[in-house]
This record gives sequence, structure tokens and C-alpha cells, in this order.
Amino acid sequence: MPPDIDFYFDFASPYSYLAAHRIDRIAARRGRKVNWHPLLVTALYQASGTPPTPTLPVKWEYVRNDVKRIARSERLPFHEPPGYPRILLEPGRAMLWIRAAHGDESAVLFARTCFHAYFGDGVDISDLEVLAGIAGAFGVQKEALLAGMVDSAIKEEFKRSSALALQQGVFGVPFVIADGEPFWGFDRFPYLEQWLARPRRVAKAAAAEPQPLPA
Amino acid sequence: MPPDIDFYFDFASPYSYLAAHRIDRIAARRGRKVNWHPLLVTALYQASGTPPTPTLPVKWEYVRNDVKRIARSERLPFHEPPGYPRILLEPGRAMLWIRAAHGDESAVLFARTCFHAYFGDGVDISDLEVLAGIAGAFGVQKEALLAGMVDSAIKEEFKRSSALALQQGVFGVPFVIADGEPFWGFDRFPYLEQWLARPRRVAKAAAAEPQPLPA
Repeated sequence: MPPDIDFYFDFASPYSYLAAHRIDRIAARRGRKVNWHPLLVTALYQASGTPPTPTLPVKWEYVRNDVKRIARSERLPFHEPPGYPRILLEPGRAMLWIRAAHGDESAVLFARTCFHAYFGDGVDISDLEVLAGIAGAFGVQKEALLAGMVDSAIKEEFKRSSALALQQGVFGVPFVIADGEPFWGFDRFPYLEQWLARPRRVAKAAAAEPQPLPA
Repeated sequence: MPPDIDFYFDFASPYSYLAAHRIDRIAARRGRKVNWHPLLVTALYQASGTPPTPTLPVKWEYVRNDVKRIARSERLPFHEPPGYPRILLEPGRAMLWIRAAHGDESAVLFARTCFHAYFGDGVDISDLEVLAGIAGAFGVQKEALLAGMVDSAIKEEFKRSSALALQQGVFGVPFVIADGEPFWGFDRFPYLEQWLARPRRVAKAAAAEPQPLPA
């Protein structure tokens, strides 16, 4: 089996929504599994050097238009969600608890549904009733989720996830690492696809030591 | 004639090199002319909110690898030039003087050759002898160039070009504006191509008021 690839994202990030929509299909086409890592992009600012885009008027106006343009090109619905832009702690914590209690498959399904509810339909996923409703569709019990996601161990794990990502060289989202090769941004997915398409023998060697793309 | 498109770049920016390699062909395919605007990206930091990438170790390591990866994918030679990364005033000033004295066609040819010398062959284009050599191939007289490019009017025009770009909403390079629609980064060229491929009737209306891409 070729090694898993790591996908770092923030539920509050519209470019993460675009990436979340595509990452599993890109990986599956090459027999790869994706490990989904929710984090808070605000925790990465020191490495990225960039203040939150919404605090930069000209850049933020550009980004708002850019996201809609890419979503149209991807034929993906996009609505600016309530309170956008904002920091979201709840879905990340909920996802980590669901992973611990119900397994990774339920957690990723939950994450994907959250992204589509938030950016596709403009539903407020900081609302605990909404999160419980989404998770309930996968058999997650509401009271257990609402208690579990604010457990100090889960809160700590969510905080640690940003620190662990930083250690891997992650300085923004979405971010993918495959065989040690880093890809920052949805716009690098074509290069991720090229990387994953390399002959398997190269991919094996790359697991030990990152290799350049074939020229 | 459909309206010209504006291309903002910095000779010191490797992503500008990638963009410079493609912009004229993309535009020509749709009957568009490109206006090349050299500027200093350091003058845009207040709008972008980002300190120079080379001051951010993790991000800079990423960018160095990313540029090489894209160049390989484009089958474009890439060498880190001497003193890289650095601020470059000389080629921008030289280009503006060549435009004033020899016309736009020579200026763009000069700019394209500078990019290929700098990032393709790793030649130092802050060296006045090198610049004079490049320009000499297009019939530009060396002494006139070396005197003209440090004329205060040219220095002022080069300074003003960054301020004018900022007024147009440019906060990074490479940056393209077509019919009022902004495209930041070489990675947005696929969307620029989609934009330019819209039916001509829409393109005309867009000159007055920017239109969304067709859904």
C-alpha cells in the first residue's frame, strides 16, 4: 500500500472547502487514503507572517471574488455563511470527538457534510444544534457529542493539531503533504495530481526521501 | 478591438517569471494586447499585509521548492540567480527608459529577455553591463541606456508605477487585470483564460462593468 497523504484544513476557510470537495477523489484515483487534520489557521500566523486576510481590505475584496470564481468553475455551490468570516472551533472539536468515538470514516463524512452545509448552503455550523443534526444522520447520539466535544482532552487535541501541523511545515490552509512533498492551496492540486501519478517505484523511494517531480 | 489587459510584475519575483513566459500567448489567443507594468513588490506590502517571504523561513523553503516544481511542470529552465532573493531596481528602470526611447515592443522584448537571463540562466540582471548587453541586441545604444535609466524622470516613473498599481487594487505579483477582473498569481492563469474565452458580447459589456464568469 502506498503511504497515506495528509490534508490540513480549517472549517472556516473557503479554500479548504474547495479542497475538501476534491481531495479524496484525487487520492483514491492513485490508491491513496487521506488523513483529514482540522486545525485553526489563526494558530499558523507566525509561520505564514500574514495577518488574517479579512483585516486587509483590498486583499479581502479580491479573495471574496476569487473564491466565488473558483467555485463557479468547479460547479460547486458557494454562499458566504452567516457571520463570515469568523473563527470556528466547534466543528473541529466535534470532528475529533466523532473520530475517537465512531471512527475515521464517520469523522470525514461529518467534516465533508459540515463544509457543504457551511459554504454550500450558508448554514451556521458553529450552532451546536446544527452540528448535532449533521452528526445525527450518521448515527451519532446528540448528548454524547455535545458533552464529548467540550471535554478537555478533545479541546487539547484540537489545540495540539495546529502545533503538530506547524512542526510538519504547514503554514496555511488548505495544505497537503504526500511522501514529504508539501502542497499549499487548492491551486496546487494539479501539482499534487502530477506528484501522485509518478511511477510507484519512485513513490516508494520518496516515502523515505522526497524526490523532485520528473522533469 | 477588445481592450488591452494589464500585467503587473516585479523582475525579482520568480512567479512573475513564470507568468511573463505565458501572458502574451494567452492574451494573443483571444486577440488581446498586454500592457507590461514593472513595479517593486516591496511597495505593496501594506496592502498585502505580508512581509517579504524570504524573512519567513518555513514559507520561504516552501516557495523555493514550489517555484522549481512549477518550472519543471512548465518545462521552463529555472536557476536561482546570484544574490537571490533581492530587490531589483535596474531592469525596471531600464525597461521604462527603453519604452520611452524605443517603443513598447522593444521594452517588452527586453523584459522577457531579462526574465529568462535572470531565472532561466541565473545571470545577474542588476549588472549594468548585462542590461546593456541584452538591450544592445535590440539596437539600444549602451551609453544612452545607462544615462537614461538613472534620469530622475524615469526613477520617478518607476516609483509611481507601484503607487498606480496599488490604486488599481494590485497587492502582489504577478497580477493581471482584464476588463476590471483581477487575477493574482500565476496559478490564476487558468481562470484568466476562462475569462478571456467568454463570448465577445459579454467581454464588451464587461469593459464598462465587470461581469461574473458564466456559471
